[in-house]
Amino acid sequence: MSELVKVVLGEDRLPRQWYNLAADLPHPLPPPVDAAGQPIGPEALAAVFPMNLIEQEMSAQRWIDIPAEVLGLLKIWRPTPLYRARRLEQRLGTPAKIYYKHEGVSPPGSHKPNTAVAQAYYNREFGIKRLTTETGAGQWGSALAFACQLIGIECKVFMVRISFDQKPFRKIMMRTWGANCVASPSTETEVGKQILAEDPDTPGSLGIAISEALEQAVADEQTRYSLGSVLNHVMLHQTVIGLEAKEQLELVGDSPDVVIGCAGGGSNFAGMAFPFVADKIAGSSQVRIVATEPESCPTLTRAPFAYDSGDVAMMTPLLPMHTLGHRFIPPAIHAGGLRYHGMAPLVSHALREGLIEAAALHQLECYQAAVTFAHTEGFIPAPETSHAIAQTIREANRAKEEGKERVILLTWSGHGLMDFAGYQAFFDGQLADHSLSDEHLERYTACLADLPKPPALG
Amino acid sequence: MSELVKVVLGEDRLPRQWYNLAADLPHPLPPPVDAAGQPIGPEALAAVFPMNLIEQEMSAQRWIDIPAEVLGLLKIWRPTPLYRARRLEQRLGTPAKIYYKHEGVSPPGSHKPNTAVAQAYYNREFGIKRLTTETGAGQWGSALAFACQLIGIECKVFMVRISFDQKPFRKIMMRTWGANCVASPSTETEVGKQILAEDPDTPGSLGIAISEALEQAVADEQTRYSLGSVLNHVMLHQTVIGLEAKEQLELVGDSPDVVIGCAGGGSNFAGMAFPFVADKIAGSSQVRIVATEPESCPTLTRAPFAYDSGDVAMMTPLLPMHTLGHRFIPPAIHAGGLRYHGMAPLVSHALREGLIEAAALHQLECYQAAVTFAHTEGFIPAPETSHAIAQTIREANRAKEEGKERVILLTWSGHGLMDFAGYQAFFDGQLADHSLSDEHLERYTACLADLPKPPALG
Repeated sequence: MSELVKVVLGEDRLPRQWYNLAADLPHPLPPPVDAAGQPIGPEALAAVFPMNLIEQEMSAQRWIDIPAEVLGLLKIWRPTPLYRARRLEQRLGTPAKIYYKHEGVSPPGSHKPNTAVAQAYYNREFGIKRLTTETGAGQWGSALAFACQLIGIECKVFMVRISFDQKPFRKIMMRTWGANCVASPSTETEVGKQILAEDPDTPGSLGIAISEALEQAVADEQTRYSLGSVLNHVMLHQTVIGLEAKEQLELVGDSPDVVIGCAGGGSNFAGMAFPFVADKIAGSSQVRIVATEPESCPTLTRAPFAYDSGDVAMMTPLLPMHTLGHRFIPPAIHAGGLRYHGMAPLVSHALREGLIEAAALHQLECYQAAVTFAHTEGFIPAPETSHAIAQTIREANRAKEEGKERVILLTWSGHGLMDFAGYQAFFDGQLADHSLSDEHLERYTACLADLPKPPALG
Repeated sequence: MSELVKVVLGEDRLPRQWYNLAADLPHPLPPPVDAAGQPIGPEALAAVFPMNLIEQEMSAQRWIDIPAEVLGLLKIWRPTPLYRARRLEQRLGTPAKIYYKHEGVSPPGSHKPNTAVAQAYYNREFGIKRLTTETGAGQWGSALAFACQLIGIECKVFMVRISFDQKPFRKIMMRTWGANCVASPSTETEVGKQILAEDPDTPGSLGIAISEALEQAVADEQTRYSLGSVLNHVMLHQTVIGLEAKEQLELVGDSPDVVIGCAGGGSNFAGMAFPFVADKIAGSSQVRIVATEPESCPTLTRAPFAYDSGDVAMMTPLLPMHTLGHRFIPPAIHAGGLRYHGMAPLVSHALREGLIEAAALHQLECYQAAVTFAHTEGFIPAPETSHAIAQTIREANRAKEEGKERVILLTWSGHGLMDFAGYQAFFDGQLADHSLSDEHLERYTACLADLPKPPALG
């Protein structure tokens, strides 16, 4: 019998239910609140999201059924393969076993369509004809474009101007799936027009793009807004990753000592981690679970847990999360998906509960890890994914130093075939590492002082 | 039980042997010859290829074992999934069942690594330290870069200058896998320097790039040349596609009435088709097998079967094949992989034997088919692959007209995530259809008159 390379599951093994961590938290997650600190009700979100998704957002039910039509679409690329990274292990000379869950096999190339398909479905079922969203690097916009086309509703994407100009292929990808992708700020919204009037040459920002997408969503009864990370229902939809991985590892008789994922808004990390967090809460597992983020955007490792808004213009409710402050502007690192000021409340809360840990890495180490991965395992990772790979290599090297055969599981969130500009900059020596100074951290988080405070644990 | 979306096989079901059509041809394939029409022996190829691959090239053995190390690397992405294209069927309203074999799941995104891995392996086993090759659009150069990195030898790619400049991301992809990719013509070879002296601004051509790769291969004892299509051993390595597809269809109780693949040099088509051609020769199948090509480069549909050289400079032996003449310059269509003047001798001969048929399609129909596919099945195909999809839609529509439930099987040779410039040109209305006039066909093929003639069939 030759050595196993990957564990594949037939599509009949796709999970039939999503796992909701909110049902099992030792202490409840503080609710979203308004500016006065009052918990908001479902109706406060109704102009932005359809009620069926708002119910999921606020649900404390442990298992939630995946609708049959969503299952049928997930089967296009799921269950995703679980790989044993033997050549990487050999290159590192580590006694650790490294497994990676390959989420890059979806049509848009990342884990994002796991929730995009579900969100498009629930919106269409609620009678919505059109979704708006924002995108930075383009990973999320592509996934929603794909999902809306297959579900049969329209999709409008506001793409940050500088990315729109620098990454022309992402917008053509969205166009191929029939989405209307425009540069943000645009002349299609009041907020866009206002910002363009002040600065016609602005490169745009994610905060502006969110504001434009929200403005169009609330202005039309048949339009809603879709968010690709941060919110509870997005974490929920991603748990198929971890549920499948558990079954695949059981098939080969292994269970992880360390689970690793990169975290921008937190969704791919949560999707892998939460089913394992459940085991820790139940007391049946001692697994370490590590969220990795850029040193230049150290939300989990250095930012306070506070109530903050999801966007610059403070159009969203206040969410309890680790946040660098809604005015935070991260340096222009190439892992665009990790440049968000906040972190999913559920991920932030799990860190506060001591159920997970966090590590920050510099981008040069991450790019080097990505190249080592491509040279050994063949697949070229997205810059975001490289943050999980670099941490994996750190853990594998530690296992080597300690002479321990540890089982490491990482979520390989997406491929890098749309990200070669970043690789080129790395090869050409044009990238540098960026740390956030204490002074800047203090300045950015100062805005949190005037906002309501989440209750202490317990 | 919900409807099946795809058939996946565990890696233990990967074929253990390649199928060699040469063993079963009703009439033997004419041998390669020199300019005087004399059959060439293995030694004539020894400066260019390693002897173990030359033996495969000339073998008449029906089944050839796949080495264990090659099997281990193929398992990174194989067996590839076989999809039932139900949403495409519904969109077309056809009673036909459409299956597609997804070769785009490999790290470089196409079927090309099936042979790249094998070629890199045999070269390294023969003691070769370095492979040279040429690439146009970049699909083949990427696959060989990937394979050489995992096998552990060097890779040098001469990329046609105009593609090198227009498609910067392909060369970074190769660089990520450690390959040295240079624009052709280069100043590294005599032929390159000579051409640059005559025309410093030349856009280059595949013929020039082949000549440069060959010059470097023959000049160094530890270097050999690698070709991504056309040759018998390349067709051989691709037969894992058809062998897997047969097993997958048997699992769902279907057998194809029509098998379709796009054909440039012929390798992805042959890989799918030849195991089915074997059944036709054995008399156990009446399946129609259709090779599709661009109207602008109509090798199988309009070009004579003749002895011709594989490159402009006539450095290669003469091969018996359908050829538009080695001086043929196709229009600049975006399916770069289908712009070759010749066609694999085995594919050409199978057409002559009446075992397969051929169809030519215009690129606008193909791009429209690609978009229809992306809107229904989700995956975005390469422009080359779209030629197989367009033919599939024609066959599905014919089945609808005739009210027949036909089973159509196509080889989905690769994804289009590196080809968005072509999609953009299509969306922007910048593409036109090109036909080859009879006058130009006559002019291009005139050069064949002075070359030896292959014997008539039988």
